[in-house]
Amino acid sequence: MSKPKVFEKPTGVKDYLPHAVAKLRRIERDVLECMRRWGYEQIMTPTLEYYDTVGVASATSDQKLFKLLNHRGTTIVLRSDMTAPIARVVGSLLKEQSFPLRLSYHGNVFRAFEEEAGRDAEFFQTGVELVGDPSPEADAEMIALAIESLKSAGVKSFKIAVGHVGFLNGLFEETLLGRDAEQDALKACLLQRDHVGYRHILRNLSVEDGSKRELEDILRLRGGQEVCEQALQLSGNEEAHKAIRHLCEVWDVLEAYGVQEHVLIDLTMIGDFTYYTGMTFEGYASNMGFPVCSGGRYDNLLAQFGRPAPATGFALKTTRILEVVEDEAASGKGSGKTLIMYTAAARVRALAEAAKLRTEGSAVVAAGVIGEEWPDTVKVEDGFVYQGTLFEHLIVFDGKGERA
Amino acid sequence: MSKPKVFEKPTGVKDYLPHAVAKLRRIERDVLECMRRWGYEQIMTPTLEYYDTVGVASATSDQKLFKLLNHRGTTIVLRSDMTAPIARVVGSLLKEQSFPLRLSYHGNVFRAFEEEAGRDAEFFQTGVELVGDPSPEADAEMIALAIESLKSAGVKSFKIAVGHVGFLNGLFEETLLGRDAEQDALKACLLQRDHVGYRHILRNLSVEDGSKRELEDILRLRGGQEVCEQALQLSGNEEAHKAIRHLCEVWDVLEAYGVQEHVLIDLTMIGDFTYYTGMTFEGYASNMGFPVCSGGRYDNLLAQFGRPAPATGFALKTTRILEVVEDEAASGKGSGKTLIMYTAAARVRALAEAAKLRTEGSAVVAAGVIGEEWPDTVKVEDGFVYQGTLFEHLIVFDGKGERA
Repeated sequence: MSKPKVFEKPTGVKDYLPHAVAKLRRIERDVLECMRRWGYEQIMTPTLEYYDTVGVASATSDQKLFKLLNHRGTTIVLRSDMTAPIARVVGSLLKEQSFPLRLSYHGNVFRAFEEEAGRDAEFFQTGVELVGDPSPEADAEMIALAIESLKSAGVKSFKIAVGHVGFLNGLFEETLLGRDAEQDALKACLLQRDHVGYRHILRNLSVEDGSKRELEDILRLRGGQEVCEQALQLSGNEEAHKAIRHLCEVWDVLEAYGVQEHVLIDLTMIGDFTYYTGMTFEGYASNMGFPVCSGGRYDNLLAQFGRPAPATGFALKTTRILEVVEDEAASGKGSGKTLIMYTAAARVRALAEAAKLRTEGSAVVAAGVIGEEWPDTVKVEDGFVYQGTLFEHLIVFDGKGERA
Repeated sequence: MSKPKVFEKPTGVKDYLPHAVAKLRRIERDVLECMRRWGYEQIMTPTLEYYDTVGVASATSDQKLFKLLNHRGTTIVLRSDMTAPIARVVGSLLKEQSFPLRLSYHGNVFRAFEEEAGRDAEFFQTGVELVGDPSPEADAEMIALAIESLKSAGVKSFKIAVGHVGFLNGLFEETLLGRDAEQDALKACLLQRDHVGYRHILRNLSVEDGSKRELEDILRLRGGQEVCEQALQLSGNEEAHKAIRHLCEVWDVLEAYGVQEHVLIDLTMIGDFTYYTGMTFEGYASNMGFPVCSGGRYDNLLAQFGRPAPATGFALKTTRILEVVEDEAASGKGSGKTLIMYTAAARVRALAEAAKLRTEGSAVVAAGVIGEEWPDTVKVEDGFVYQGTLFEHLIVFDGKGERA
């Protein structure tokens, strides 16, 4: 196999140059600050976790986990999400703290093989977990906070689609009891939002006409609160009904938050995480084919870490949001940077001036110039360019006096 | 082999709870802001790099690299420092940008097997690289900026020890030409700061008395600028003299910065990175046995990424600084958090009040209370505790009116 070239990095991972870093950092800061104002406290967990604990508990399929062996022969994974590591912490370091716990995070997660689909192998997520509260209020808080977080990030136009794992499960158990392969095929189509494929499978399904109509009708269960009413008519299954009643209560709270304009009930929605047990949601920005956030209720995960508890949470897909949000640099002109040039004889005064301006918050490059000839600067619209860098101000100390 | 328990994480990696995260994030923010004011722009590189490019170029010994295979069979490493990845970016994405380049970063790096020595396998570094400037001014800028960065981080009392790779190399070549094993043994003692071991090897060395005295005398070459004068007397080697003259010029610039009280010339100091070619330095905080920052000149590394250039830089050992810096929470009393309790009937007004307080910057938890009984809160000195969380303010909306 040929060696990679020296300037290459592995496929699926990124370098972020200063312009992109400034944007990413601004989003990170504003979203975490938004979460702080909702009472969430930030935690950090390591990049490396045991495969047998967090790796297995995570919702990432096995072949998408980055694995390595430590020197004791134990399999280690690069974390593929933040929810499972946080569940581990809630069950260990935080086990004396009473519920509910409100925790936030910003971190990079890893998925192997994603690069084959043109997706990132390493990307950032910013999210929260609300552990220990089973109420519709808690689920509504996730959706309302996701909406505020997306606004803080600078996403201008978006919709949150809300579904419930229990509704689809109930309906499928009612119509296709014990026919797991067919259930899975239909669910896979819903996950891909492939309604054509869904209808195709449905046509060839040997079930009675009434059930077929029910399964077909769920494709139309998208809209406002009226969808809940339609869903209650559609199915007589108790699990499905319970799910819908929960969603109705969530909707009531969302109305109290005054955020219903951003929310759409979509009962065809199926979370992509296997650990979801209740309400799930995804956020879509205008003109983007992929979600900018996703979340849901996961009432069984904490039990895997020795502390059974209901929980709900969501994550912003921060790396993707970077592509949605406008460049901020476009607004302000100039680099804001100051260049101080000086001769050796004027060094003390020049460096004192640099220190003073830095204390005031300016970005200052102090460039010592040895010799008689002052180097060239090139005047441009927003300031001037010296050695390839754009500066807004120039101060010269030449030992005779100061020139600004 | 036994499976790890569910609450375990790999040895050598850490969870950071909210209190520690707040401190780490404060240090990260203040140090990066300090670097911005010195004209450095932040970049980010991926966690994963090719072994054959960045892995080999890094100064980390092979067995301390975390390695994994990607699905194409190419060896990937978890980055063990930030300097080699940034050199890769300077030679590729930034290859059209003229020198000097001033770049800053904050990131986690990985070292395998470190946990056996009780050290971290994953830790944070915050640093800068100044690429394309060979001058003593550039080296002095590193030391002066390291001092400002440590102050920004909150490290109160520290010293920067400055040495030069060329001085020791020159002296050893003069006294022990071609005797690499003996040179390496002596250098290993200096790296460990093991002067007893150094003297022991020296006693048994078959060299003439004059050389032995020279090699012994370097242990005393620690202090202010006078050390440079002593060093010039000690050795007649040209490389050693050139190194000392460079250090003298660096010292002159440090005097102009007015930071010499923090600086100590220590010619026994040998950087722990094999890629250092000139001035090297380490920062020590009072009462800490390990460095809180380290840096130096590396004029040969960039050539490995196709763009030969002189370069100098340093990194703060941010994870260690966390232990040195005092807890900030001790200063301010109370949690600053507000709890809003409400009945379903008062939900709209309660959530509106929560939104208003959040807009003003408060951290607000909105807790919906269904039923007749108000839950218990416990009064404590700094506020009150509800469900295990400390709050400073309580506002109750019970449908009849508001009580603060």
